[in-house]
Amino acid sequence: MDKSSINVGLLGWGTVGTGVSKILLSQSGLISQNAGVELRLKKIAKRTLPALRDGVDFPDDCLTTDPSEVVDNPEIDIVVELIGGVTDSRDFIGRAIQNGKHVVTANKALLAEHGGELFRLADENRVSLNFEASTAGGIPIIKTLRESFAANRIQSLYGIINGTCNYILSQMHEGGVDFKVVLKEAQAKGYAEADPTLDIEGHDAAQKLLLLTALAYGMNAPSEHIHVEGITKITQQDIQYARELGYVIKLLAIGKLNSAKSVEIRVHPTLLPMQSLLANVGGAFNAVCVIGDAVGPTLFYGQGAGEMPTASAVVADIIDAGKSIVGDRDSRVSRAWRTDAKPEVSLCLIDDIETRYYIRSVVQDKPGVLAQISSILGEHRISIASVIQKERYETDETASLVIVTHMASEKNMQFAMKEIDALDVVKGASQLIRIEEEVAF
Amino acid sequence: MDKSSINVGLLGWGTVGTGVSKILLSQSGLISQNAGVELRLKKIAKRTLPALRDGVDFPDDCLTTDPSEVVDNPEIDIVVELIGGVTDSRDFIGRAIQNGKHVVTANKALLAEHGGELFRLADENRVSLNFEASTAGGIPIIKTLRESFAANRIQSLYGIINGTCNYILSQMHEGGVDFKVVLKEAQAKGYAEADPTLDIEGHDAAQKLLLLTALAYGMNAPSEHIHVEGITKITQQDIQYARELGYVIKLLAIGKLNSAKSVEIRVHPTLLPMQSLLANVGGAFNAVCVIGDAVGPTLFYGQGAGEMPTASAVVADIIDAGKSIVGDRDSRVSRAWRTDAKPEVSLCLIDDIETRYYIRSVVQDKPGVLAQISSILGEHRISIASVIQKERYETDETASLVIVTHMASEKNMQFAMKEIDALDVVKGASQLIRIEEEVAF
Repeated sequence: MDKSSINVGLLGWGTVGTGVSKILLSQSGLISQNAGVELRLKKIAKRTLPALRDGVDFPDDCLTTDPSEVVDNPEIDIVVELIGGVTDSRDFIGRAIQNGKHVVTANKALLAEHGGELFRLADENRVSLNFEASTAGGIPIIKTLRESFAANRIQSLYGIINGTCNYILSQMHEGGVDFKVVLKEAQAKGYAEADPTLDIEGHDAAQKLLLLTALAYGMNAPSEHIHVEGITKITQQDIQYARELGYVIKLLAIGKLNSAKSVEIRVHPTLLPMQSLLANVGGAFNAVCVIGDAVGPTLFYGQGAGEMPTASAVVADIIDAGKSIVGDRDSRVSRAWRTDAKPEVSLCLIDDIETRYYIRSVVQDKPGVLAQISSILGEHRISIASVIQKERYETDETASLVIVTHMASEKNMQFAMKEIDALDVVKGASQLIRIEEEVAF
Repeated sequence: MDKSSINVGLLGWGTVGTGVSKILLSQSGLISQNAGVELRLKKIAKRTLPALRDGVDFPDDCLTTDPSEVVDNPEIDIVVELIGGVTDSRDFIGRAIQNGKHVVTANKALLAEHGGELFRLADENRVSLNFEASTAGGIPIIKTLRESFAANRIQSLYGIINGTCNYILSQMHEGGVDFKVVLKEAQAKGYAEADPTLDIEGHDAAQKLLLLTALAYGMNAPSEHIHVEGITKITQQDIQYARELGYVIKLLAIGKLNSAKSVEIRVHPTLLPMQSLLANVGGAFNAVCVIGDAVGPTLFYGQGAGEMPTASAVVADIIDAGKSIVGDRDSRVSRAWRTDAKPEVSLCLIDDIETRYYIRSVVQDKPGVLAQISSILGEHRISIASVIQKERYETDETASLVIVTHMASEKNMQFAMKEIDALDVVKGASQLIRIEEEVAF
């Protein structure tokens, strides 16, 4: 279809809706570039008009209290449902699809209950119904199962897909505190709802798991036959004994093709080997392990909730819908590589970076060596974070001197290293290894 | 386009090609279902015809020594280039594109060098050029950057994307052995090539990084300006000092938008905080961390090489190309949910699962209690792996008894727990938590 721009309408403007509108407005250039077409935020329907717009700048006529101005508006191409619940949202999505609009939703409860019906409807009307944000927030696990692992028989999947439970269990592991105490604290910090039942009893994880297993196994399992157990009965004693046995307790959502060639679908607290990656997913983070017959074991990790991570997934779905409207399957691949495209950024040469450094020098073991080296570093404005000096090697009276620096410029560091390596007291070339602290999650 | 089937031709039939042909032949049902069209393996061009087919069963006329039977064959819709190198592969891909064929390649060296030209050509000819398998094997990092994170400014990405280096460094950390010793061992085990230069000097990682940064930052950086350092100078001493300081040494490929709004692109050994997820990626595995302004920190983990993981990514690309030929953007979403689709698997109810269990009972601290409990477990064919019995609580003369079982049936376990909880010596309901050992990576 030949369209110069595509209009997007939002149903609901809560936390995620606000994030979606922020991204659509502030990143419009990036989004047009990736979608191959301009995506315009045309209408936002909200039950009551907001007093404050939270710094999001859209035209006044964008806001409405009437959902039909989104759902039935012939100008709108893509409807984004973010009102939650299963009654109104089902009606609105159904109407939007019948009106020929592509739909994006984050509504796991709706899809777990009425997915079959809505996808059939989307199929009949030749529109897409995208739902990446329904499960694991910004982690692209839906697309991975649908597309990237499309050549695999999925042998099993294991998800930490409820941030509230993972936060509570992580705090119980770290703080030595009991469930009820941590729950209160989580509620105070906004990690748990005032009524936390849906999370802590495992139902939220079960709804998400049903979406994952539908994709992985092509089966729409009835939710009432799924075993769902929450974390309310986990005690500090269990946490301690588990640790003693080499395990960590996590709320795990499990889908597994077993030896009888039937699929186990269950949510319950689970003991995981302490050294496994999944056991080390802490705080409110989410992670999903997928084991495919071809791809082998994989793990996907990220923020499973929150305004911007969830909005990231919603906008990716909007972009996908936009592409399917303009038929831009092919050209987007090459956009990144087009030499005629003007990149907004330039390459930073290695001399111009700043980072922290580990230096190891072999030095003569005599007084004043550290003073000489540290004064060279000081002259090049490199400050020392820590030093290890090891006992001398008796054979040649040398010792290892290890220095860790604070942030320093590479250029300065290279000059300093030349001077250091030229010192009489330094034997051979020193070792210089860069440090990255930003990946400490 | 209305096509009942799509023909696929392979250029090259080495390790990955064999994997691709295995998947295309053995999973044809699954693939047709996911692609919305039948994908047929039509031709395989190989320089010399193989004496053995490694159990892969395709028609005799499928094999040819003439690449033009793939590249110029009007019956072939999708060409999969798996011959490697940059000269022949560039010619073949160029010709295939000009013949209107969609192309799938795993050739990182070719794309790092000639990506701009080939993608422009694909663009002009309205065909796709997919390259998921070029970087990080089965991990869908290309699609994630291109599609799932399309609404994000990528702030940084950090990749462990050379399995050989990660294997060697992991062994140096674990075994306390020096680089040269581990390299020889890695060569003997097939984790390192006879000529390992490309891997251990960081060039392989640099080629992959250039693909990732092209997607993340829309810039095609000249490879000669990229700082690339290998792992050959890392000594056991460095490993030990790093550990003492709380770090692990990894070969990291880094792309980072810095405060000067320029992009750092570099490959070098790096000290990472020991407790970070990335530091715990061991052996020949790959992982990529991506930090986006909306999505926040994410991590993707899996096998970065090998016949089947790489083939998984290649076939996913073939399926994507197939979809773009038949224009099946919409209906595939719903395929998983169609209630008229007959799932090949059934739901396994919780009673029918088998797993290991953790049991914690509060028991009277007197002789014979363990005997009573273990005899009940034995009667239900549940065998005990380990037991912890803790000192009594003086207040009520009870003690905690913790039992870990071997694999047992849930049904038997539930019967046993009823009997155990009915014992006079057991106070209240026992705790029962399932154990998963399969995620121990």
